[in-house]
Amino acid sequence: MSAESRFLTLLRLLANDPAAQELRDDVAVLPVGGARLILTSDTMVEGIHYLPTDPPADIGWKLAAVNLSDLAAKGAKPLGCLLNYALSGDDAWDAAFLEGLGEALERHAMPLLGGDTVKMPEGSARSYSLTAIGEATGPVPVRGGARAGDRLYLTGPVGDAGAGLDLLRADPAAAGPLVDACRRPRPRLAEGALLAPHVSAMMDVSDGLLIDTARLAEASGLAVTIDHVPLSRALEKARGASTAVQIAAARAGDDYELLFTLPAGVKPPLRAIPVGRMERGSGLTLKIDGTIMPLPDRLGWEHG
Amino acid sequence: MSAESRFLTLLRLLANDPAAQELRDDVAVLPVGGARLILTSDTMVEGIHYLPTDPPADIGWKLAAVNLSDLAAKGAKPLGCLLNYALSGDDAWDAAFLEGLGEALERHAMPLLGGDTVKMPEGSARSYSLTAIGEATGPVPVRGGARAGDRLYLTGPVGDAGAGLDLLRADPAAAGPLVDACRRPRPRLAEGALLAPHVSAMMDVSDGLLIDTARLAEASGLAVTIDHVPLSRALEKARGASTAVQIAAARAGDDYELLFTLPAGVKPPLRAIPVGRMERGSGLTLKIDGTIMPLPDRLGWEHG
Repeated sequence: MSAESRFLTLLRLLANDPAAQELRDDVAVLPVGGARLILTSDTMVEGIHYLPTDPPADIGWKLAAVNLSDLAAKGAKPLGCLLNYALSGDDAWDAAFLEGLGEALERHAMPLLGGDTVKMPEGSARSYSLTAIGEATGPVPVRGGARAGDRLYLTGPVGDAGAGLDLLRADPAAAGPLVDACRRPRPRLAEGALLAPHVSAMMDVSDGLLIDTARLAEASGLAVTIDHVPLSRALEKARGASTAVQIAAARAGDDYELLFTLPAGVKPPLRAIPVGRMERGSGLTLKIDGTIMPLPDRLGWEHG
Repeated sequence: MSAESRFLTLLRLLANDPAAQELRDDVAVLPVGGARLILTSDTMVEGIHYLPTDPPADIGWKLAAVNLSDLAAKGAKPLGCLLNYALSGDDAWDAAFLEGLGEALERHAMPLLGGDTVKMPEGSARSYSLTAIGEATGPVPVRGGARAGDRLYLTGPVGDAGAGLDLLRADPAAAGPLVDACRRPRPRLAEGALLAPHVSAMMDVSDGLLIDTARLAEASGLAVTIDHVPLSRALEKARGASTAVQIAAARAGDDYELLFTLPAGVKPPLRAIPVGRMERGSGLTLKIDGTIMPLPDRLGWEHG
């Protein structure tokens, strides 16, 4: 059991309000004055969630995007956010961070409402938190709502962001669509709002298709088979579509597509890619070109 | 202009939603579905806002208390909070932090609803953020609502927490009421809710009586004279009530009493201590025993 898992166990004892949903989802759902608030918060740490050499505007963008993606998975409309910011000691860096954050907030109509700014002691890694507040516009999908027989879908291909990160690790000046996918992920807010009234379960794919699908299945008390790993043209062009490339794409994180389930025979209300099906039982099966694959030791990005 | 002031200037360009109140208050006020949410967030950094040797339960308590105090100053009812936590690498430390946090949350009926837990790179200072969500129960007082002729009040004495910090700096094993005031500040939620419908202006005293009074006056476009610095019995017993002790108490932070104004002739709806009056003009005057004092170079705790 990791330190984070042990801490989460203690946190659950504290978070005993129904709105906290036992901390088993990415968000809290808080009823207030006839509305249902959707609450989420993410922290990004220098050296852990981003590299000190990353462009600050992209770090700011990503902090907004990861929180907006959690709202998207609930079909929520962004209402506003609060920023906890650690000053860098470099005004130009701070200004660029805010510029990227501001672009993402403006693009997705999420006002910045407040927060706190601090200095860190010399030499410390910095960290940034954003807390996003959204409002449910209809039914709020959960991870654990899938039923046996449901089909599993993605709103888009996976693996681009992971491939972009590989490119950047080899050459910090790399550019192109894979690098863009890594640095400027796009939260699927419009898709989430369209899907929310129809899906039986939904979540965003932040840690990787394999691990997030396993989580959706576990929360639903079901088994799941993934029989298709959708790749983008950009990724196929760069790396081909071998079994190894597909497995790498299924393990890669930071794509922020939406993963959802619908009963067999129900057509998705938007263009979506069928990737598998839910079944009675438990566990994850990965088929590539019809063949069951041994699962990698590490399914994706596991926190802690 | 400090780095924080420069950053705040940039932030204000982004935070152009009316709910953000130009970031000139400690909270945002967001109307949602017939309710008005009160939103605030505070970050505590190791080595800046607390000492690495402080008991973790007290750090957890204080993180909750400082956010609850911001809600108190708006007369708001706590609805819930989200925690951004940096794991310490020491399970017992983390558990003790949560125990203190949980005590403060339970005492003030603020449920923990979610958040994020991260690891920091080896050797980094850790930081913790809490974002609190409250609901306005009536009129929401602002800092800038005082009028000329209004009387200025405090809900209690000042200087205890600062004196407690001095004791702890001299001896980390120090104990007693002054140390308690420093480590376990009590947010004035009941007082705030009682006062909110009556006051012309209100804020909590987090950075010190002098500096926070100057802020209230500036926001109200007025001058202010403080003619009384109330001391607790514990502080008088420990240090006496000399002019120097009174000035130190007026500069000390972390007391979290409420500072508010009422028109002359209006009796406060609870026991409160008259400490001064608002006047036409600008600037802060400090009188001790009827004599105008030169203001100290540093009025209190200034961020950044």
